[in-house]
Amino acid sequence: MMNFGKQTIRFQNKPRVLSGYSIVGPKEASGPLDPYFHKRLRKDDFGQRSFEKAECKLHMSAISGAIIAAGLTPKDIDVNIGGDLLNQIITSSFSARELDIPFIGMYSACSTFGQSLALGAMLIDGGYAEKVTCSTSSHFSTAERQYRYPLELGTQMTPTSQWTVTGAGCTLLGNMGGNIFVESATIGKVIDFGISDANNMGAAMAPAAAKTVVQHLLDTGREVSYYDHIVTGDLGIYGSKLFLELLESEGIHAAGVHKDCGEMIFDKKQRCPQGGSGAGCSSVVFNSYFLHHMSAGAIKRILLVPTGALLSKLSSLQGETIPGIANAVSFEREE
Amino acid sequence: MMNFGKQTIRFQNKPRVLSGYSIVGPKEASGPLDPYFHKRLRKDDFGQRSFEKAECKLHMSAISGAIIAAGLTPKDIDVNIGGDLLNQIITSSFSARELDIPFIGMYSACSTFGQSLALGAMLIDGGYAEKVTCSTSSHFSTAERQYRYPLELGTQMTPTSQWTVTGAGCTLLGNMGGNIFVESATIGKVIDFGISDANNMGAAMAPAAAKTVVQHLLDTGREVSYYDHIVTGDLGIYGSKLFLELLESEGIHAAGVHKDCGEMIFDKKQRCPQGGSGAGCSSVVFNSYFLHHMSAGAIKRILLVPTGALLSKLSSLQGETIPGIANAVSFEREE
Repeated sequence: MMNFGKQTIRFQNKPRVLSGYSIVGPKEASGPLDPYFHKRLRKDDFGQRSFEKAECKLHMSAISGAIIAAGLTPKDIDVNIGGDLLNQIITSSFSARELDIPFIGMYSACSTFGQSLALGAMLIDGGYAEKVTCSTSSHFSTAERQYRYPLELGTQMTPTSQWTVTGAGCTLLGNMGGNIFVESATIGKVIDFGISDANNMGAAMAPAAAKTVVQHLLDTGREVSYYDHIVTGDLGIYGSKLFLELLESEGIHAAGVHKDCGEMIFDKKQRCPQGGSGAGCSSVVFNSYFLHHMSAGAIKRILLVPTGALLSKLSSLQGETIPGIANAVSFEREE
Repeated sequence: MMNFGKQTIRFQNKPRVLSGYSIVGPKEASGPLDPYFHKRLRKDDFGQRSFEKAECKLHMSAISGAIIAAGLTPKDIDVNIGGDLLNQIITSSFSARELDIPFIGMYSACSTFGQSLALGAMLIDGGYAEKVTCSTSSHFSTAERQYRYPLELGTQMTPTSQWTVTGAGCTLLGNMGGNIFVESATIGKVIDFGISDANNMGAAMAPAAAKTVVQHLLDTGREVSYYDHIVTGDLGIYGSKLFLELLESEGIHAAGVHKDCGEMIFDKKQRCPQGGSGAGCSSVVFNSYFLHHMSAGAIKRILLVPTGALLSKLSSLQGETIPGIANAVSFEREE
C-alpha cells in the first residue's frame, strides 16, 4: 500500500510550486495558447547546428527560465529531474552537463513530466531537498526523424497522427513560498490494449489514462467534481473521446471537467489532425496556461495526467504493440 | 541543501533490503562470480526470437526472482522502479507491462541502478510505499548493436573496450525485515572531461565517480575507512586506475577499499580487455556477491557507486563528447 491508497502518494507537507516556465517553437506560438508562453522561438533550430542541439538549448532555457523566475540561481537548486523522448534522453543529460546541479534522469515517454513532478514533490515533502526543478522537452524534428521517417521524405500525416510539440517546460518546486502546492500523485501501471499503429498514440494511451484516473479517484475517495479540471497530457481529439468513453463505462462522467493539453495547444487551422503530443506538450501547457490561471485564482484544483506511449522504433519493427502509461499529479491552490 | 549535506540524502527510517536476485548469461556464468549468481542462462537468447525479447525476459525474471526470494507476490509490491540501456528503455517498460505493478522508468546509463535504489529508498523511508523493487538490466547483443556495430560484422574490440554484461539484477526494498538497510545516497552531477571515444567509457566515467565519492565523504564527514568497500559500477581496469588517481589527487587513498563490479565479473582468460560494463553489471554483482557477503556478516558497510556514460549513437555521430555520471548508495548491516 502507498500512504494514500493503492497507487497514490499524499504529500503532507505541501511541496510548493515556486515557478513555472515554458518555451515553444514557432508553430506552438501561432496556436491559441500563445499569450501564456514565456518565450517563443522565431525559428525552430534555435540557432543551432542540429535539431537535437536546438532541443537541448530549449530544455536548458526552460530550467534557467524557471530558476530566474523564482529569483534564484542554479546554486540554489538541489536536484534537477528531467527527461525527454530522445534515445538515452540525451537532451536532459546534456542540459544537466551545463548546469552543475545533481541530476536524476527519467523516462516514461510523454508521461515523464508526471513522474518527474511526483519524484520532485517527494524530495521536498520528505525533507530530503529544498529546491528541485522538474523539466521535460520534445521537438517535432528530432522526434519525427527518430521515431518515424527522415524529415526530408516529407511523409504525410495520417488522420490519427499527432504533431510533436516543439517546446520545453520546467516547474520549480520548493519547501516554502507561493500558494500552489502538489497535493498527491498516483503512479500509473503499464497498460497494453494491443494498439500497434505508431500513428495512433491517442488510442494506445487512453486506457492507461482512464485506469490511472479511476484509481486516483478510488484511492482518494473523490468525485470528478473535486477538480476544476482533469488535464490529460496528449491524448489528442480521438484519444480524448476514447478516454471519456472508458471513464463513462466505469460510471464516471468527466466530459465537462476534462481538458487535454494536446488538444489545447493547436487549433484546427494548423493542420495537426489530432492535436499535439510529446514529452514537452503537457509541461509547456501546464507551466503556462494552467499555472497562470491557478496563480490568478481562476482555477483552484487540477489533476494533471501526462500520458505516455511506450515504444521504440525497434519495438515496432519487432512487431510489439504499444503499451501506455499515465501518472496523475494533483495541484491545489491555498487561499 | 539536501538533508545530509550538499548532494546527500540520509534515510532516517532505514529502508530494508528484503531480497536481491541476479540472473546472468553464459559468459558471466563462466566468470569468477559464478557461485554467487541466482540463475544462469545456457544460451543468451533465453529461448526468445530476438535478443531484445531475451533481455526483457531477463529483466522480468530478476524482478520475479527477488519477489519470490522475499516470500512475496507481485500484488505485495507498490512500485517497480526500473531502467536499462535500450532506446526508450523498452526492456523495463515491457517488463512492467507483464507485472501489473505501478512503474517508474529511470535512465542514467549504467548508473541507473544507483538512481533506482535512491528513489526506492526514498519511497520507503518517507512512508510513501511499503515495498519497492529496483531493477536494471543489460545484454551484450542488444547493447552492441544499438550503440556500436551490427553483431554480424564481428568487429574487434579495442584495448580500452569493456564487454556489456548480459544480466539483470533486482533489489527488493521494504519498511521492515532483514538487517541490511540503505543508509544514505549521494546524487551525482553530470561531468564531462571531453572523452569522445565510445570504446573508452571507463575514462569518461572515472571523473564523475571520483567527484561523487569525494562529495559523499565531504557531506557525511566520513573517511574512506568507514566503508569495507567502495564499489564502483563498471569503470573497468583502466577506468579504476584513473578513478584511484583522481581520488589520490584529492588526498584520498582508496586503493585498498575499492572494488569495481566490471573488473570483478570477468577474469583475464575471458578476453574482455577492460572487464564488464552495462546497466546490469553493478546490479548483478551487488545482488549476488555483495549481498551474499553482507548477509553472511563478512561485509558490514559498502558504498555502491554505479557509474554511467551518457551518450547515444546520435550524440556521438554529431560530434558530442561523452559526459559521465555516478550515484552513490550506502548500505549497512545492523548487528
